[in-house]
Amino acid sequence: MRLDEIARKLECELDGPGEIEITGVAGLEEAGPDELSFVSNRKYVPKIRHSRAGAILAASDIRTGKIPRLISDNPYLAFARAIEFFYQPPSPVPGIHPAASIAETAVLGEDYSIGANVVIGEGARLGDRCVLHPNVTIYPQACIGDDFSAHSNAVVREHVRIGHRVTLQNGAVIGGDGFGFAPDSQGQYHKMVQSGTVVLEDDVEVGACACIDRATVGETRVEKGAKIDNLVQIGHGSQVGPDSVMAAQVGLAGSTRLGKGVRLAGQVGVAGHLEIGDGPVATARTGIGRSVKAGSVISGTPEMDTTLWKKNYLLMLKFPELVKTVKRLNREVEELKSRISEGDFAQRRKNAE
Amino acid sequence: MRLDEIARKLECELDGPGEIEITGVAGLEEAGPDELSFVSNRKYVPKIRHSRAGAILAASDIRTGKIPRLISDNPYLAFARAIEFFYQPPSPVPGIHPAASIAETAVLGEDYSIGANVVIGEGARLGDRCVLHPNVTIYPQACIGDDFSAHSNAVVREHVRIGHRVTLQNGAVIGGDGFGFAPDSQGQYHKMVQSGTVVLEDDVEVGACACIDRATVGETRVEKGAKIDNLVQIGHGSQVGPDSVMAAQVGLAGSTRLGKGVRLAGQVGVAGHLEIGDGPVATARTGIGRSVKAGSVISGTPEMDTTLWKKNYLLMLKFPELVKTVKRLNREVEELKSRISEGDFAQRRKNAE
Amino acid sequence: MRLDEIARKLECELDGPGEIEITGVAGLEEAGPDELSFVSNRKYVPKIRHSRAGAILAASDIRTGKIPRLISDNPYLAFARAIEFFYQPPSPVPGIHPAASIAETAVLGEDYSIGANVVIGEGARLGDRCVLHPNVTIYPQACIGDDFSAHSNAVVREHVRIGHRVTLQNGAVIGGDGFGFAPDSQGQYHKMVQSGTVVLEDDVEVGACACIDRATVGETRVEKGAKIDNLVQIGHGSQVGPDSVMAAQVGLAGSTRLGKGVRLAGQVGVAGHLEIGDGPVATARTGIGRSVKAGSVISGTPEMDTTLWKKNYLLMLKFPELVKTVKRLNREVEELKSRISEGDFAQRRKNAE
Repeated sequence: MRLDEIARKLECELDGPGEIEITGVAGLEEAGPDELSFVSNRKYVPKIRHSRAGAILAASDIRTGKIPRLISDNPYLAFARAIEFFYQPPSPVPGIHPAASIAETAVLGEDYSIGANVVIGEGARLGDRCVLHPNVTIYPQACIGDDFSAHSNAVVREHVRIGHRVTLQNGAVIGGDGFGFAPDSQGQYHKMVQSGTVVLEDDVEVGACACIDRATVGETRVEKGAKIDNLVQIGHGSQVGPDSVMAAQVGLAGSTRLGKGVRLAGQVGVAGHLEIGDGPVATARTGIGRSVKAGSVISGTPEMDTTLWKKNYLLMLKFPELVKTVKRLNREVEELKSRISEGDFAQRRKNAE
Repeated sequence: MRLDEIARKLECELDGPGEIEITGVAGLEEAGPDELSFVSNRKYVPKIRHSRAGAILAASDIRTGKIPRLISDNPYLAFARAIEFFYQPPSPVPGIHPAASIAETAVLGEDYSIGANVVIGEGARLGDRCVLHPNVTIYPQACIGDDFSAHSNAVVREHVRIGHRVTLQNGAVIGGDGFGFAPDSQGQYHKMVQSGTVVLEDDVEVGACACIDRATVGETRVEKGAKIDNLVQIGHGSQVGPDSVMAAQVGLAGSTRLGKGVRLAGQVGVAGHLEIGDGPVATARTGIGRSVKAGSVISGTPEMDTTLWKKNYLLMLKFPELVKTVKRLNREVEELKSRISEGDFAQRRKNAE
Repeated sequence: MRLDEIARKLECELDGPGEIEITGVAGLEEAGPDELSFVSNRKYVPKIRHSRAGAILAASDIRTGKIPRLISDNPYLAFARAIEFFYQPPSPVPGIHPAASIAETAVLGEDYSIGANVVIGEGARLGDRCVLHPNVTIYPQACIGDDFSAHSNAVVREHVRIGHRVTLQNGAVIGGDGFGFAPDSQGQYHKMVQSGTVVLEDDVEVGACACIDRATVGETRVEKGAKIDNLVQIGHGSQVGPDSVMAAQVGLAGSTRLGKGVRLAGQVGVAGHLEIGDGPVATARTGIGRSVKAGSVISGTPEMDTTLWKKNYLLMLKFPELVKTVKRLNREVEELKSRISEGDFAQRRKNAE
């Protein structure tokens, strides 16, 4: 595809010759002369000079030297669209594989693709254009919207409700039992029936082997457009606000509510029964133990302001010296005190003379 | 169900009118006038005044104002039982689904429910009333007791032994190979055959996508009544004591022994070859690097007493100020020293005069 | 098997009687009089005196008292081989189970064992001697070498390329979509098609429920001989060097490159776009936020030299006392200053007189 055609399709201004033939997309370091790349994070601007890319998507104030540039306000989003010009994902096989097991009372929409060994339980309902890869299990009474895509080994448990355009990666578990056990006076635990359910709203994506537990009573809810990465745990009764993003291995304990646009980086943990306001950002591995107000940027376990956390880290690199200094000061102050006392004594003695 | 009937069934004293009709159960904040709620953690007592619940399960010393109260020594456990009055979990379909594959030498007890695509290997044995949801895999020679329940994609590997009343949530892996590789002199790793097995004793529950590895030699053992949450890793040769509880994403390295009633909160990690005594509690994200004695309450990485850890956290919030103070003191002590020396000198000079 | 025969097979020098009959292998604490054990880590030498083992594999400078010894430069590796003398793993059933679903255009090598409900997609290719346990899913166009072993619920996604002698434990997901979403100006996320793939080179093993994501563009690569434990996350576009080892629950964000022989202990997290040189070791729960040079040993979040981290930990155990000392010093220095000033004043007054 010619570069000027790409510019036209992406509605980007082209800064350079339009007749270059682009055959694919790649990262800045990997891209060759017939590939399109991008710069979004300004940190990577210095890498432009070493790039062999045929063209670069970049903001209007970023120079790309002699490499043709496609000017975009959002180069990352434009790049996301450009990928699709050169890549066709595998097309699902229409119809129902003979080795699928679909209950008689299950209801399917139109234009489905249902793979081998898919199991759909009694009373389950799916919308139009669902794609169920092999070995997906939909439990009885689950209710799922249009354009649902579930990869192999994804599971949707009984009574779970799922909106439109939801994607489950492989092995995602939606609606497993919440971890609810009541201890008796002997310290033995009795299972609390997890009678609630899970609701995934429209445009949610759930990563591989991520687990979203059903509520003890009521529901666990992931709101519109939230994106959840691999191996994430969402405890029973929690609520994830719209357009929130949780990176891999994040854990959310039970009954915690996240606001809109919350971003939790990898391996963050959030305790139960908390309120996280709109838009906070927690850096990787933050352990959140208290409610967090909107717009915070936090780090550490327990969490603190990221600026303070970074400062503390740098100071901790010299902590042994600090301790030594304090010990020395302690000795010196002792000595000063005794010398002053002597001085005082000398003075008093002198005065007394 | 009338409130007085609920009181009778739960063997609770009723403080209030008995004729109220209760139709369900819910949390304190969600419950409406025809729902029963509970207060267990005293932290939530202040929320009672805002609750719209029809009745509340609470200890005898907790006032619920004008909301009828069911008095219970263990309101949480009573609530767990009350849930079951209003909820019937989906009843498993009796018999064997035609799409299941059961080896000829496998032995089943009575009253089973075996879903589509379940695979049971040669020589495997299951007790009475097992419920195997679709896509469960039981490897050859596994031996499982009565009242076993396994959700879709749960796996029980070869020779694993499982007691009575054990539940596996979706995607749980019991008896995967332990992570055992021996490096040679070139730094290349050679797989050690994991010849041991896993034993789950009675009343154990294992969460979704939790992994309990088989031992290199001998066994990995989870003792009676232990509860293991989603995405937990239990390394080869470890032993989890009875009635221990491990929350989501906890990791236990190999050959570690946990005593009775150990409670590990979410994302805790425990190093290998340790002894954890009876009853310790580790707060969320604790990294345990040494053996821990019975009854400890620990936090941090590496672990320390939780009281100290909390105190240190509060002090770290003012760490930059502390460092500044030390630097200032250092300057001031220097100055004092020089002034005293001058003073001494002056004194000595004076004395010499 | 007689001890002298074991010695001969392992090419070890025998120090003790050779006619003892050994019937199995076990750890030092569990081994009985007819079992072979080993000592590799010198930390466990004191346990030898309490061992009931029939013989012990140990280095030439480790004394085993009256227990016969097999002298080995690498007792751990020798023990790994000895396990195989006494254990036969379950032999896979040859052929294709009738409940497997294999696409017409898929190509299989020779001597395969394909279990019930295995699904192999269009155009997928497998080498000789593959063992696919029940419920494994191979997506279309995957390309896999010889001696591949995949346990139940393992998934190989479309176009993934896998070398020879690769093993996937249960539920491993190779090639799930990377976590790539581009935010628009309203803060809504748009999925970036993950058009790249995953390459696993020869002799790689991947643990249960571990997830290795496909790249947005290009590839995610795990190089020869790397070993990856359960529940590990490897983000899109990352590269894991040869003979690297990642313990359970490690998380690698996107586009990070690990060198050769890197060892990451349990629950370590590594941020994206970093370079980790050859051979670093990160202790359990390290959070790596910056590039790390070859041969480092690091701990903490963010990472620091392990020696410093251990020192800081010990000092933190007395942190409250340190803070008290600084506060006291602050008071005392104030007092000294004022006394000196008074002294000065007194002196000056005296001088003035």
